Amino acid sequence: MTTDPPRGAAVIGQAGGPTAVINQSLVGVVEGLRAGGLVGRVLGARHGVRGMVDDRFVDLTDTPDAALDRVARTPSAALGSTRDKPDEAYCERIFDRLRAREVRYFFYIGGNDSADTCRIVNEVSNAAGYELRCFHVPKTIDNDLIENDHTPGYPSAARFVAHAFTGDNLDNASLGGVKINIVMGRHAGFLTAASALARRREDDGPHLIYLPERDFDPARFVADVDRVYSKLGRCLVAVSEGIHNAAGEPISALMSGLNECDAHGNVQLSGSGALGDWLANLIRVELTPAGGKPLRVRADTFGYLQRCYPDPSPVDQREARAVGRTAAEVALLGDLDGSVAIRRVRSAPYECRFELERLSAVAGKTRVMPEEFLDGEHGVTPAFLDYARPLVGDLAVVERL
Amino acid sequence: MTTDPPRGAAVIGQAGGPTAVINQSLVGVVEGLRAGGLVGRVLGARHGVRGMVDDRFVDLTDTPDAALDRVARTPSAALGSTRDKPDEAYCERIFDRLRAREVRYFFYIGGNDSADTCRIVNEVSNAAGYELRCFHVPKTIDNDLIENDHTPGYPSAARFVAHAFTGDNLDNASLGGVKINIVMGRHAGFLTAASALARRREDDGPHLIYLPERDFDPARFVADVDRVYSKLGRCLVAVSEGIHNAAGEPISALMSGLNECDAHGNVQLSGSGALGDWLANLIRVELTPAGGKPLRVRADTFGYLQRCYPDPSPVDQREARAVGRTAAEVALLGDLDGSVAIRRVRSAPYECRFELERLSAVAGKTRVMPEEFLDGEHGVTPAFLDYARPLVGDLAVVERL
Repeated sequence: MTTDPPRGAAVIGQAGGPTAVINQSLVGVVEGLRAGGLVGRVLGARHGVRGMVDDRFVDLTDTPDAALDRVARTPSAALGSTRDKPDEAYCERIFDRLRAREVRYFFYIGGNDSADTCRIVNEVSNAAGYELRCFHVPKTIDNDLIENDHTPGYPSAARFVAHAFTGDNLDNASLGGVKINIVMGRHAGFLTAASALARRREDDGPHLIYLPERDFDPARFVADVDRVYSKLGRCLVAVSEGIHNAAGEPISALMSGLNECDAHGNVQLSGSGALGDWLANLIRVELTPAGGKPLRVRADTFGYLQRCYPDPSPVDQREARAVGRTAAEVALLGDLDGSVAIRRVRSAPYECRFELERLSAVAGKTRVMPEEFLDGEHGVTPAFLDYARPLVGDLAVVERL
Repeated sequence: MTTDPPRGAAVIGQAGGPTAVINQSLVGVVEGLRAGGLVGRVLGARHGVRGMVDDRFVDLTDTPDAALDRVARTPSAALGSTRDKPDEAYCERIFDRLRAREVRYFFYIGGNDSADTCRIVNEVSNAAGYELRCFHVPKTIDNDLIENDHTPGYPSAARFVAHAFTGDNLDNASLGGVKINIVMGRHAGFLTAASALARRREDDGPHLIYLPERDFDPARFVADVDRVYSKLGRCLVAVSEGIHNAAGEPISALMSGLNECDAHGNVQLSGSGALGDWLANLIRVELTPAGGKPLRVRADTFGYLQRCYPDPSPVDQREARAVGRTAAEVALLGDLDGSVAIRRVRSAPYECRFELERLSAVAGKTRVMPEEFLDGEHGVTPAFLDYARPLVGDLAVVERL
């Protein structure tokens, strides 16, 4: 279904947790709109829908290309982000602002919550008889958007995790003991699984990987660590922040007593070292010999560095730019709304293409690791490694003596 | 004082916390010894003095140059590390091993504790009438060796901290709230101070920096955060893990109840998120309005990534290699023992040179930030930034809208 593209302004927003390449998508949309030549003003909304309500915009119509290119290379959300979830009343306030500025194109860069925001804005605009082309541009380090092979932001975060485990595996080998690293990922284990990219030799860590796709059993965890430590004198463990018991209760929420939620009902998992410290203490208590020297156990929680450390994957930079440009192009070609999705053509040599999905196909849904990527013994399968390797770029040199 | 260099083997060990460039120094020693042509076998001791006692060596005499170069680029200690502190009896056991292998050159790569180990080995060898040339090769991300402008390992760790704060400053700007990051550094604030390299604009974080060179007052901390947050709607804070109260008691040790110590009497500070979580909770409790929504406060503890993340500073790579090569050269030229020190010739354009110090001048002593680098309001002075900037290499592009 197509119609002639309306003249008018465009507004772009960024939402949810920022990534190292979310600004590539912002700049991609701007470039696509400029190339199309049909749109008037190009506005960026400060802090997503929040800025649309508060009438806080930055005019990107005449921002020089060189400045845009530097913005694209800058991590985090240059426009600011938000976790607001608009209802109809909220959308009415947005429309007042957008009508006043003759905005006819709405681009929202974010994850599944943001796709849902986009869907709501689209539905309310349809009901109000206001023609507003609404496009969701994918972004999430969690890699949990359905209909996508992977999502912009994930490759760079996976690269960070792979590099962090590469260094930490060697650090753990040099001094021994048990090391536990907590990795982001509420429901999907893709980012924690990327730790396996650090393995170059048989005895390299992470030796154990715990993902939210499987129930977490503390007693089994202790036995697993004991087995590896007894064999190697060390053990490096990757744990998703989203691990939960068989009843589905998050381990981190149970122990930290945190009950802070955002507007989407998500419990705060990141920004605290509680889960890592609890697991480290569990191992120390259970595996230190009676009367013996305490077992050397350390825990690090990688935290927000995973989404903002300024060493993005080159593939991720290119694709994040391209999904933004694609959204602008299809909007100007006549599509009314949708979400740009990344499909993989093949892994070797790596190639992907972009398609348009319906907003409702992506909005508010969560993809988790497929069964073929999950392995009971090693955490992930070779199929996962084949999937992830082309995304993260060349990894650091490792040579052992 | 010089003598003809003895024929015999050389042994090299790595000790203390690994760094991203400690293998550059290892390879530098090997290269220097090979170039000199006087030494027979070149042995690496597994896990420092521990491997010498346990007779665990790796023969590096014929390791190909290409493999050595890859080892040099690999983070962490390729030979393994140790925190053992030898006494005379321990040294006697080392000598038995070294005599059997006709080792006459001993190179020990590490920090001030490792320099002290080197000093003890040297004194006991002198007392035993065994000619063993003992050289300390500097290494520590803490940057706390006296007689040195800076120490190999620090520039790369400082680069990581500067990049982490660069990304996290933008992340904090995009979603607001208070973010606290805990940085390594037991007694010296150099690494935490490197967070200031992330500031490009007036309102960039870190807005507050807390170093172990100053007493930490929780009430003052709360007031500081309140002042910044009230002005900017956000606040990014850098806190050294080594902060202590006016009585000199570490804040982290007080709250976590940890009492694990290594052989040098150092309390474990890293590998736990307790300090960050405690500070975050303090701010949340004190600054959330009565009956209001909890203030968004997050804490990350950068942990071991600071010393092993594989993105070293180019200056650090070169200098770490050069201090190793210098130690080998002076050993073969006739010097009997000592510690290689880095002196700065000038900052712009940056240039440094290497000198030999007595082991006793460096061993077991701790340098802290000089007064001219400390500023009550901003944490660090422009003089510190001039000092640190040439060390870390080019930092990531940042462009704001």
